[in-house]
Amino acid sequence: MERVSVGLLGLGTVGTGVARLLVEEADRIARRSGRAIDLKWVVVRDPHKKRGVELPNARIVTDVRRVLDDPEVEVVIETMGGIHPTLETVLEALAAKKDVVTANKALLAEHGTTVFGQARKYGRAVAFEASVGGGIPIVQALGVSLAANQVQSLAAIVNGTCNFILTAMTREGTPYESALRKAQELGYAEADPTMDVDGTDTAHKLAVLAQLAFEANIKTAQIPRQGIDRLQTADIRYAGELGYVVKLLALAKLSEFGLELRVAPTLVKKGTPLADVSGPYNAIRVVGDAVGDTLFYGRGAGMMPTASAVVGDLVDVVSGRTAVTFRTLNLWSESKPVPKLTPPSAVHSRYYLRFMIADRPGVLASLATVLGTKGISIASVIQHDPGDDEPAGSPVPLVIMTHMAAEAGIRAALDEIDGLGVVHAPSVCLGVEE
Amino acid sequence: MERVSVGLLGLGTVGTGVARLLVEEADRIARRSGRAIDLKWVVVRDPHKKRGVELPNARIVTDVRRVLDDPEVEVVIETMGGIHPTLETVLEALAAKKDVVTANKALLAEHGTTVFGQARKYGRAVAFEASVGGGIPIVQALGVSLAANQVQSLAAIVNGTCNFILTAMTREGTPYESALRKAQELGYAEADPTMDVDGTDTAHKLAVLAQLAFEANIKTAQIPRQGIDRLQTADIRYAGELGYVVKLLALAKLSEFGLELRVAPTLVKKGTPLADVSGPYNAIRVVGDAVGDTLFYGRGAGMMPTASAVVGDLVDVVSGRTAVTFRTLNLWSESKPVPKLTPPSAVHSRYYLRFMIADRPGVLASLATVLGTKGISIASVIQHDPGDDEPAGSPVPLVIMTHMAAEAGIRAALDEIDGLGVVHAPSVCLGVEE
Repeated sequence: MERVSVGLLGLGTVGTGVARLLVEEADRIARRSGRAIDLKWVVVRDPHKKRGVELPNARIVTDVRRVLDDPEVEVVIETMGGIHPTLETVLEALAAKKDVVTANKALLAEHGTTVFGQARKYGRAVAFEASVGGGIPIVQALGVSLAANQVQSLAAIVNGTCNFILTAMTREGTPYESALRKAQELGYAEADPTMDVDGTDTAHKLAVLAQLAFEANIKTAQIPRQGIDRLQTADIRYAGELGYVVKLLALAKLSEFGLELRVAPTLVKKGTPLADVSGPYNAIRVVGDAVGDTLFYGRGAGMMPTASAVVGDLVDVVSGRTAVTFRTLNLWSESKPVPKLTPPSAVHSRYYLRFMIADRPGVLASLATVLGTKGISIASVIQHDPGDDEPAGSPVPLVIMTHMAAEAGIRAALDEIDGLGVVHAPSVCLGVEE
Repeated sequence: MERVSVGLLGLGTVGTGVARLLVEEADRIARRSGRAIDLKWVVVRDPHKKRGVELPNARIVTDVRRVLDDPEVEVVIETMGGIHPTLETVLEALAAKKDVVTANKALLAEHGTTVFGQARKYGRAVAFEASVGGGIPIVQALGVSLAANQVQSLAAIVNGTCNFILTAMTREGTPYESALRKAQELGYAEADPTMDVDGTDTAHKLAVLAQLAFEANIKTAQIPRQGIDRLQTADIRYAGELGYVVKLLALAKLSEFGLELRVAPTLVKKGTPLADVSGPYNAIRVVGDAVGDTLFYGRGAGMMPTASAVVGDLVDVVSGRTAVTFRTLNLWSESKPVPKLTPPSAVHSRYYLRFMIADRPGVLASLATVLGTKGISIASVIQHDPGDDEPAGSPVPLVIMTHMAAEAGIRAALDEIDGLGVVHAPSVCLGVEE
């Protein structure tokens, strides 16, 4: 059997998982690749650190040049993460005629055009299954399996940290801060969780998904996004009363108005497959014009699930399939037209609204009047009797679920209502995914 | 752009969907294939029948030889179904150096070794994504994306007819016969639904899945199977009380005892992803040693979903990827060892049991004693007060959910209990998938 030498950059969680698969399952992976894989180099920051894997045949070094300058190495696996110096290293690897496997969604979302331009220039391929949805083969599904389809919409739960926190808030009524702490204790959230909870990580992944599904070169900054960091347990509870759960969704929809993209906490109908995606799991719902509704579900992070995707990519690269896919897909190409994004005025949805209103006569009427003048029709209302727990005169929550409405109308109505002098606290507004 | 000529055998539901995609979405498919696809021949039984597709450039003929003898045709798409003469036609197409795309699970389950042997002999490829799960890319997932994994278990809902019937029985309490009639009226069941409802179609698909996931050459006859045709609404209701729904599952598990395969109505815990797969939808749960739990969900049948899979295969074949996959996977190879199947004595599960017992003192005690002597531990019991609706002395249902138990012990206990003279009607026994 022919052999192929590869270099691994980074031996953190994902890198360790990749090394373990390559060492411990070498026979299986060789059989499925058609070539035996030699993990020749592993580049780390600290060569003396104890690792969770035995690497009898790999040379552990700190200098990435050892890999880049070795003409025997045909594939570089990048699990360093971050943008710099990862970008420069990846560009050099491609210039040195090595294929690249990466799990780095931020790199692709921000610098996909540069990376793929370089790959095309040097006739190399870049594989990135692990960049979205961890072990879920969504990149393969969108890039290859669903090739007969024009994707019409995507709705994705692709941040396990947020989904874990939301599941705890939903099931146990835990406030956001405690749920976040629990996620950190269990290793589902980083010490600094900002990029996860503010929706940035989800937006990176949506940029990658949009590239595959809609051939749309999107920068993360173009995606309107809202995280879960200001979400209150009360809204999760009221959503539950209305028959919905709240999920942080990456949404993309193609319509006559263009491509609509958004990352936001969204109400999802109970009993539908996305609603049941709990804890650290991820799922991507894809609607194609031929295939209809599909859903891909699995672990979105973690050592071995992510390593499963990285090594799957490696098998694809080594066997020669990735080169074919790369040639036909023309991803992150500069020659692609700038995608037309749906203007906010054309966005329609049902909306969940919560107002903290003064408990006195006429308030509901004045709110309903504003909504009515903006053409927003009310589907259901929740206002519970505050009972004796609250001092008289305390603001009470008024929850309204609208019928389909224009986002622009909703925004105008909220501005007007917040200026009426009868609502306390800024009003809450969440979209609904049917 | 280079061009490639293909021939389509059959213009039934799936064939019409394939032709529609090839004609109406020609540009999209050409771009993703890297070559423009000419649908040159369409072979039908009745050339005068009105079809749901315009085929301006294809020649509609009745003689399959026109396709087989045309050296320009590089790929044959088989949507005729059935075993004969489909098998002979496919073998001739391969001998004529044409690649084959097929949706025919029965053909693969029964004659996979012959078909793939012929393909290897003539250096051709066979693609079969549409044979299991309709539009769900499960063949690609098992054969390519999850290549880094040893699959440990599969649990699949792959017969939309059965799932539609079970959903109706569960949600509306409809008896089996009426649910089947409703499925037939809505086009979800054939006029002769035998192969669907008796589990044969699911067993065919399990044979294909086992080949991909476990490299196991399994004949349908080796798979113990039970259909839904004798399932009673009462058992679905009691399962519901215990927190389960009943699904017709194709099950495969790898353990130290070998490979366990089964098709049977099975209790699935509510709130888990498989339990929520409703109506005509399909889903396949795959557990891999690296990736962990995954689920693939979508429409398991129908014109366009199945055509999506067939045309996806065609794109894969034409682009050259299938040839690579075909070479590395070595599917349905005669050289593979005969798989070791788990002996019935080593099968363990939780079990749902229902007995129709005489409503008199001591009966529960005698049943419980038999179960105890066979080492079967009881987890929960349901016996409702028959009330005044039933005449005194009528048999009453006794439902028992066991803890983990050996299948052999359960069978022995049921035999003994059925011989006690205190139970009416044969006892019901269903496995539980946790």
